[in-house]
Amino acid sequence: MRAARYYGKEDIRIETDVAEGECGEGQVRVAPAFVGICGTDIHEFFQPTFAPLEPHPLTRETVPITIGHEFSGIVTEVGKGVVSVREGQHVAVQPTLYCGECAACRTNAENVCHKGGFVGLSGGGGGLSDSVVVAEISVLRLPDNVPLDVGALVEPLSVAWHAISAAPLTPDSTVLVLGGGPIGLAVVQCLVALKTKKIIMSEVSKSRQRFAREFGAHHVLDPKTYDLVAISKELSNGDGPDIVFDCAGVPASLATACQAVKTRGTVVNVAIWEKEVPFQPNMLVFREAHYTAVLGYQRKDFQAVIGHLADGSLRPEKMITSKIKLADLVESGIKALVNDKESHVKILVDMGEK
Amino acid sequence: MRAARYYGKEDIRIETDVAEGECGEGQVRVAPAFVGICGTDIHEFFQPTFAPLEPHPLTRETVPITIGHEFSGIVTEVGKGVVSVREGQHVAVQPTLYCGECAACRTNAENVCHKGGFVGLSGGGGGLSDSVVVAEISVLRLPDNVPLDVGALVEPLSVAWHAISAAPLTPDSTVLVLGGGPIGLAVVQCLVALKTKKIIMSEVSKSRQRFAREFGAHHVLDPKTYDLVAISKELSNGDGPDIVFDCAGVPASLATACQAVKTRGTVVNVAIWEKEVPFQPNMLVFREAHYTAVLGYQRKDFQAVIGHLADGSLRPEKMITSKIKLADLVESGIKALVNDKESHVKILVDMGEK
Repeated sequence: MRAARYYGKEDIRIETDVAEGECGEGQVRVAPAFVGICGTDIHEFFQPTFAPLEPHPLTRETVPITIGHEFSGIVTEVGKGVVSVREGQHVAVQPTLYCGECAACRTNAENVCHKGGFVGLSGGGGGLSDSVVVAEISVLRLPDNVPLDVGALVEPLSVAWHAISAAPLTPDSTVLVLGGGPIGLAVVQCLVALKTKKIIMSEVSKSRQRFAREFGAHHVLDPKTYDLVAISKELSNGDGPDIVFDCAGVPASLATACQAVKTRGTVVNVAIWEKEVPFQPNMLVFREAHYTAVLGYQRKDFQAVIGHLADGSLRPEKMITSKIKLADLVESGIKALVNDKESHVKILVDMGEK
Repeated sequence: MRAARYYGKEDIRIETDVAEGECGEGQVRVAPAFVGICGTDIHEFFQPTFAPLEPHPLTRETVPITIGHEFSGIVTEVGKGVVSVREGQHVAVQPTLYCGECAACRTNAENVCHKGGFVGLSGGGGGLSDSVVVAEISVLRLPDNVPLDVGALVEPLSVAWHAISAAPLTPDSTVLVLGGGPIGLAVVQCLVALKTKKIIMSEVSKSRQRFAREFGAHHVLDPKTYDLVAISKELSNGDGPDIVFDCAGVPASLATACQAVKTRGTVVNVAIWEKEVPFQPNMLVFREAHYTAVLGYQRKDFQAVIGHLADGSLRPEKMITSKIKLADLVESGIKALVNDKESHVKILVDMGEK
């Protein structure tokens, strides 16, 4: 079968003779339909982080591995004992891999499993192939009114859903979102789906500002023009937003988040950080604020997102700014996202286009 | 009357002709009995931070001011309308000053009032004098079985009580306390009062380690000898303490706290930080942990501490390592705490010793 294989730094190869996996008991074979290219894929392309250079503790695989972890597809085979899906159904795949035994898994925090990984990043196959075999628990049915291309957006929307679930959000909340990349825009959409009263987005890029407005942010501000701490306080009756989501993950966003948030408010860090940054904890001390961090998602986040897609309260279609063929993954996908950030939110690989 | 007056850096003068304040409506005059010397007093001595170099928004005072904010005393006069205390009663003073109008005060977070201050740090008189006038709401009666010297410990114990109240503590919790100074030792005592199952203290100083053991810490470890992250995980069945209190406030304690805490556990910062420090948010991300910060205390914390002193579940007498006269404040108080940290936990000024 075809598969995009990651060999190492800046070395992704589209191969055509990759062996298909076996579909064993409790497993489901999926033919991927659409596969999103994620910031993590780009990061891995330039600097392997998740890629197993040693055998991964769960998949036992090392590079080369098949990539692609944001995907929808069609069930083509079900293993013995599988009851929740059947051949021909449209599904989204929740790619988290976990051991089920560690202290994190024992407390239902399998998304931070001590040995954890992701289908499409850690071995175990990936969405950028003609066939991938995953556990039944990883597969969620897409309702008939959710098309397969939108199904590939369930994963990034679930990152956002998981993040907003970590905050004490109410419909009356005032929320500041720092950074309008795909995840920041997904956070805005999830907040809109929950009818959040006031959503403030901070983003430098003009095109991303436009996306934020289209997705329903109430105030979209350029942090190069505005003092975000001051203006977000003004927009919150003087004490700052109830919740700040840091989807930027840079020293400036950390400082803005901790200085803008209201007394006893909550900063939710959604970013993965490349390195240590300067931090003055007194920013939190003098407002008794909370800083909390989230990672990935759980099955319940996928379920919630699919529910909101089905009832129309999430309408993420405009996130899809381009659809490409598998053969063009590196040039029209990864490199386009690096070189033309302004134009793109989410590029999907259409696995049906040969 | 006598009063210790702070004029500026390294300039505290014991004066004998300071005018007494008026005891107006809703106010209470207290003759201080015992006054603790706090780390903040020492910090102010070398580097004014709280001291109002400009008129304080609430007290309107500038330096020189009367100092002393950890104190007990005897009521000597009550203003019109005061009903909760009367002349001759023993009291502790909750020194927080707040505006009652800002966004923090409006949400009952008067301890982080935007204009806030402290009796004895911000003007408004102080405990290191023969008489101080405070609002009725600042005064709490000491039961007959709580002596006045112990009454001066209510304030530092309340800092600790406020901190532990910010954590999701249960009797089954495993807790790591970083730093065995007066506040770290107070945290240990409050945890013991609540019958916390496992209390681990990290402290370098041998004498403070001894105090921690005497106050009931179950494991007392020197971070220069032990890998606190590894050993506190071992002592917590492999996933780390449920809660970590950072009472040290240094880069090493921040990193230890964030790396030791369990999946979805809570780090409570009790320290005030001198400057920015390096921080890698991923430490929290990969365990979805919470970092929260506290400041000061509220009246309810004083009430809780006094209740536990009265019922004997808090027995902090051994914190008092020395009692001195007002005249000796700088030499035998502040400088002793700087030069002989090993020997001292809390030095009290006995205002009755002339």
